[in-house]
Amino acid sequence: MEDFTQFCTSWRPQINRYLHEQISREVKQAELREGMLYSLDAGGKRLRPLLALATLKTFQAQVDLKPYLRIFGAIELIHTYSLIHDDLPEMDNDDYRRGKLTNHKYFSVGRAVLAGDALLTQAFFWLSDNNLDSSLKSALIQTLSQAAGPQGMVAGQMLDIINTGRTLDYPVIRQLDAQKTGALLQASVLMGALCAQANSSQRQHLQQFAGSYGIAFQIYDDLLDLQSTSQAMGKAVGKDAVAGKNTYPQLLGISQAQKKLQELIREAQRQLQALQLDTSLLDSSLDYFKQE
Amino acid sequence: MEDFTQFCTSWRPQINRYLHEQISREVKQAELREGMLYSLDAGGKRLRPLLALATLKTFQAQVDLKPYLRIFGAIELIHTYSLIHDDLPEMDNDDYRRGKLTNHKYFSVGRAVLAGDALLTQAFFWLSDNNLDSSLKSALIQTLSQAAGPQGMVAGQMLDIINTGRTLDYPVIRQLDAQKTGALLQASVLMGALCAQANSSQRQHLQQFAGSYGIAFQIYDDLLDLQSTSQAMGKAVGKDAVAGKNTYPQLLGISQAQKKLQELIREAQRQLQALQLDTSLLDSSLDYFKQE
Repeated sequence: MEDFTQFCTSWRPQINRYLHEQISREVKQAELREGMLYSLDAGGKRLRPLLALATLKTFQAQVDLKPYLRIFGAIELIHTYSLIHDDLPEMDNDDYRRGKLTNHKYFSVGRAVLAGDALLTQAFFWLSDNNLDSSLKSALIQTLSQAAGPQGMVAGQMLDIINTGRTLDYPVIRQLDAQKTGALLQASVLMGALCAQANSSQRQHLQQFAGSYGIAFQIYDDLLDLQSTSQAMGKAVGKDAVAGKNTYPQLLGISQAQKKLQELIREAQRQLQALQLDTSLLDSSLDYFKQE
Repeated sequence: MEDFTQFCTSWRPQINRYLHEQISREVKQAELREGMLYSLDAGGKRLRPLLALATLKTFQAQVDLKPYLRIFGAIELIHTYSLIHDDLPEMDNDDYRRGKLTNHKYFSVGRAVLAGDALLTQAFFWLSDNNLDSSLKSALIQTLSQAAGPQGMVAGQMLDIINTGRTLDYPVIRQLDAQKTGALLQASVLMGALCAQANSSQRQHLQQFAGSYGIAFQIYDDLLDLQSTSQAMGKAVGKDAVAGKNTYPQLLGISQAQKKLQELIREAQRQLQALQLDTSLLDSSLDYFKQE
């Protein structure tokens, strides 16, 4: 099976095109469409839909992935809404994202709040308005709403803003990241597994894979924030420390954080092995953390 | 059949209790739970779930409405999120709502944005996490997400904020209100009809009923804003004119607006008659507009 990097190179442009074309077609109100497209078209790795597609393909090598762009594109709508709202002045107060002005800096806070609200709601429209079987639709909606809402991502963002400036210990940061970043990554993999009709033991291994992946992702991102230059990231760097954000390297020290990252990757690999399938595509998704 | 006022008196406390108890139980993160409950517990007419329940009861007089508190309560979660976000400083900038400080004044803008995001997402969790048949679930989710999102309510709110201070003509205001207020009222009635397995002709009459109801509601609200005292409303009054908001009485004059309101009520009654059912419960929901 192909490598995750190649897989991303071939599917990312299709995800981008789908997101752009559908929102352009479905959203008639000009300012809202413009606000939604501004952030959707700003790029991004599209990691969440790509992980979902890769999970589905791991179970069904011959599946036609095109019809699933709407299903997994919904996850990217939610991810994009969360970035717009997180960047707001009374949240993380970011002026730049992916090398462009943030949505509220380019338009206004009011318009950015509404663009986010619209993306979030449209995600559930996409998940209900498609050709899948009804029971699969509602399982997908349940999974995504639980992961994105007050039992998941929004709770993590609340923990984040109320604790900025305070020093947290490891279990609390881990809880925060599990909700803020991990829940949506986990939902992505789980949604791929639901579409593939994976059984409950397989879904459990995949959830644990995605759990480790999510924390690894956050530690890697924290390390990157410390090490890379402002130019390469397209956003302000070293900003976490300035903003009093709690990060893994700050808490554990850089070398312990790197060690923890390696442990999480090994744990993620073990969960994939337990599936007893050709998991080379998902295995190679972990290579991301080995890049310099 | 009983009168809509009596129906509301008996069901409103049950809706209130359901909303409070479920959010208390489902949302573990303390600050988020507190923010969501602050606005949910502030009262309100619960008009949207009550209209949905009344529509269902119009078709199935003997139905047990209790299991539907979760389904139609989801509409109230969405209505409440929209009020929290609409009150924000860069939107309508309201300090008071229902006699209490608005969510962002009591907590903070960041916390209010998140409480709104959480309520919106949890609505779709409730609609996917219940005992209804899967195909009914996805029809309900499609209806509500279309009405609440960028094809409906959010588009109306965008039109509203970008046109504040400009004078609009009647068709544009009507479009704005149809999206901002009408779409969710229409969805409420339609969701009741979907649960009742109403046929497509019945659903059309009900949609037209709710369309007229929605515009009548807005005109009545505008007239109330002009006429009532600050104390009775629990919010700033005459504020629409001060804020440069476009209202029907401002555009049509008070007496023409009152005449339009009467026409809309008659049109709504005609649509109910066409159902050829005992529609006394829904008929009496129009009495609301006859109160002084």
